[in-house]
Amino acid sequence: MGKKLTKRSEDYSKWYNELVIKADLAENSGVRGCMVIKPYGYAIWEKMQAGLDSMFKETGHQNAYFPLFIPKSYLSKEASHVEGFAKECAVVTHYRLKNAEDGSGIVVDEEARLEEELIVRPTSETIIWDTYRRWIQSYRDLPLLINQWANVVRWEMRTRLFLRTAEFLWQEGHTAHATEQEAIDEAELILKIYADFAEDYMAVPVIKGTKSESERFAGALETYCIEALMQDGKALQAGTSHFLGQNFAKAFDVKFATKEGKQEYVWATSWGVSTRLMGALIMTHSDDNGLVLPPRLAPIQVVIVPIYKGMDQLEAISQKVKPMVEALRAKGISVKYDDRDTHKPGFKFNEYELKGVPVRVAIGQRDLENNTVEIARRDTLEKRTVAQDDVLEEITVMLEEIQTNLYQRASQYRTEHITEVDTYEEFKKVLEEKGGFISAHWDGTAATEEKIKEETKATIRCIPLDEEPIPGKCMVTGAPSTQRVLFAKAY
Amino acid sequence: MGKKLTKRSEDYSKWYNELVIKADLAENSGVRGCMVIKPYGYAIWEKMQAGLDSMFKETGHQNAYFPLFIPKSYLSKEASHVEGFAKECAVVTHYRLKNAEDGSGIVVDEEARLEEELIVRPTSETIIWDTYRRWIQSYRDLPLLINQWANVVRWEMRTRLFLRTAEFLWQEGHTAHATEQEAIDEAELILKIYADFAEDYMAVPVIKGTKSESERFAGALETYCIEALMQDGKALQAGTSHFLGQNFAKAFDVKFATKEGKQEYVWATSWGVSTRLMGALIMTHSDDNGLVLPPRLAPIQVVIVPIYKGMDQLEAISQKVKPMVEALRAKGISVKYDDRDTHKPGFKFNEYELKGVPVRVAIGQRDLENNTVEIARRDTLEKRTVAQDDVLEEITVMLEEIQTNLYQRASQYRTEHITEVDTYEEFKKVLEEKGGFISAHWDGTAATEEKIKEETKATIRCIPLDEEPIPGKCMVTGAPSTQRVLFAKAY
Repeated sequence: MGKKLTKRSEDYSKWYNELVIKADLAENSGVRGCMVIKPYGYAIWEKMQAGLDSMFKETGHQNAYFPLFIPKSYLSKEASHVEGFAKECAVVTHYRLKNAEDGSGIVVDEEARLEEELIVRPTSETIIWDTYRRWIQSYRDLPLLINQWANVVRWEMRTRLFLRTAEFLWQEGHTAHATEQEAIDEAELILKIYADFAEDYMAVPVIKGTKSESERFAGALETYCIEALMQDGKALQAGTSHFLGQNFAKAFDVKFATKEGKQEYVWATSWGVSTRLMGALIMTHSDDNGLVLPPRLAPIQVVIVPIYKGMDQLEAISQKVKPMVEALRAKGISVKYDDRDTHKPGFKFNEYELKGVPVRVAIGQRDLENNTVEIARRDTLEKRTVAQDDVLEEITVMLEEIQTNLYQRASQYRTEHITEVDTYEEFKKVLEEKGGFISAHWDGTAATEEKIKEETKATIRCIPLDEEPIPGKCMVTGAPSTQRVLFAKAY
Repeated sequence: MGKKLTKRSEDYSKWYNELVIKADLAENSGVRGCMVIKPYGYAIWEKMQAGLDSMFKETGHQNAYFPLFIPKSYLSKEASHVEGFAKECAVVTHYRLKNAEDGSGIVVDEEARLEEELIVRPTSETIIWDTYRRWIQSYRDLPLLINQWANVVRWEMRTRLFLRTAEFLWQEGHTAHATEQEAIDEAELILKIYADFAEDYMAVPVIKGTKSESERFAGALETYCIEALMQDGKALQAGTSHFLGQNFAKAFDVKFATKEGKQEYVWATSWGVSTRLMGALIMTHSDDNGLVLPPRLAPIQVVIVPIYKGMDQLEAISQKVKPMVEALRAKGISVKYDDRDTHKPGFKFNEYELKGVPVRVAIGQRDLENNTVEIARRDTLEKRTVAQDDVLEEITVMLEEIQTNLYQRASQYRTEHITEVDTYEEFKKVLEEKGGFISAHWDGTAATEEKIKEETKATIRCIPLDEEPIPGKCMVTGAPSTQRVLFAKAY
């Protein structure tokens, strides 16, 4: 285990970095900016994938796979897209290595230079729309609802495990539609799926909104997003869904024959969530003792630790535990019985606390005599003794309670950290002293947005969708505002 | 649909290429050698992944994720490994593009040259063993049983969809053990898993064996493999499992403290199967009408096609079909009810035949009157009329029969195409006229193996494991041979 975690109150950022390492979620690799996702972290990501994947499929989406590489010329075809993505990307220029003539090792074979450089995909709109040109001829081919699970690379200069890495894992949906309205409906449907997933699986409350023009995805007409709030008062964008209009259809010449036989450009969306969600999950719930996981995403939901002296006691305990494990598994609950004799119970307690296992069951000699066990929940750290006959029922209820409690706790924090302000002075004060989301009027101009960002580092996280727009005056310029928007410092 | 498939007997290779395209499995992309896996093809791959993944997990393996990029220097650390993989690989040399000064578009920013080039992983032994050095200190950390689902790139000059592509998808297992025997046992366990998967899921019979030294994986002490036989008499290597000895542990300095406190190098295995399995699946079972899929891997197991005139008839048929669909789904059978009114039944029949849907149900006006349906099986193209009340039972049985029949059919073909020969003359004759596996004595030298390869294009596919070794004399040199080995021309 090593020494204790840094406290959140001392240094939130350090706490996060330590937690990711100590809880065996991920670590930095020998390749700058690229992480290794360790088995325990990957098991959580697999549960996220499974949840999202079934939600996509239930709404008619299919998975496919497109090339890792994008020819440089493709990237240039959509003007604003290339501005957004060409800057920091991994460029493949050669396709062969050879032995150095001086015997010093292997070197790039200069004769094997590619005619056209290939970019490791930072996102796949261009290669996918190049493909859709072949797939779409008629209205009968629409809508085309496709998702891809893939790795992508963006050459970030400052990286942090899960939050910002040069390579990350994600899903990217790319859909094609016959009408503008259908494409907008799709982008909004996905936004709802993302929000439901964040709230129901991750127990992370999110605000649904749209991005200001300057924060939009490169090539989009509208970017929808879900925004979450971390425990240090900083916001985290947890997912985006883009209405792309006909930009990519025009760039890649993707037209379809309407029912009436006319040729029209196709309407598009794209949308994605990434391993960044792992960062949101970790930072929303965890505490100074370690990770706290919502039961729906916990690789191990229940751990059972025997407390014994000698092999006879262990044997007697194991006898009692076996039917419990079977009963829990039969209910679909994932259980680990940790009877390793290389580690003491105290060590195991710490380990599972650090790893955020929702429910811990301990059973010792006295429990054998009394037909009891001790159950402890990770979220509140409460412990109590229950009859062995009630274990299945108690744990089932407890897992539900933990899932609900985590969401409520995070919601309460979030609600307490949305502050309405009407002046720029107040804005700066709240930002400095309290953090969180600040709801304020803004005149809708990029200039004001930029000024606020420069002066305070706060950005417009979103223009909330689920709020009645009430007009007012911009806190900075006094110019008219159609509705309050949410500002925050963000990851 | 377009025009019919080329017949296998006319041009097997052309038949395969057309089938992959027409059945919507995959297509070439705008990036040389990289394929797009289309939704229908990807759905089959997802089923393969799910089957294998559960087999890996049941045997204690965990998934993780390692970087896409490998620093050039890592690749050089294991001498024979670099020989095998450095030749044809994608090399990242720069991390930024910029606008060309002459306004002609975007160009590589020469100032953003990497200090050390990065190789897009052709396989991950080196980056993973660099990581394992940090993960393994003591015997308590062993065994380490890790698998990764990932994309890899090998810059192949001649590519074919699924069989040989520059980028492909695969899983790669990388395990670490305290003893040589444990590592060998692991490599053999995985071989068994691969063989079971090929036979039970894919209905593809395989021969388990080891590779000759010259066909071994670069860096392995022993390569185990499963070899399948395609309908054109060529063999296809469907999976490999490598015992790596201590080669990578030594190259990356991975030692562990034994129970007795000694420092020893770790023993290793690696193993993988790829989207190449899709090629094996397609080529083993399919016919001149299109794809034939084993039910366990078919994305759609049953399709129901209504045959009707007018909306009233369709409505009446749909009423009957609804409970059938529900009953089949409740049994875990995937069903599609294709009531599109944009296409005629004949068109649909052809489409599902081409796509290899195992069971087709047709229901028309006469069936409504007689309480019957027509069911057709894809493997034998047999049709018969059954009572609606029996549909669930009939289809359940039929799906099992198809799975079994496909395996048996392929086994029979394979058995008929293993020929024992004792002279090199006979060898060449059988190879030319009949194809398939040829079982012959070989003197165990690389020179003889190379001579045979040069003169006939046949390679040693494997030294079979499940056969009693009977000594003999090499068909080429007459030198002693310890057992017969299997030769074939191969994909």
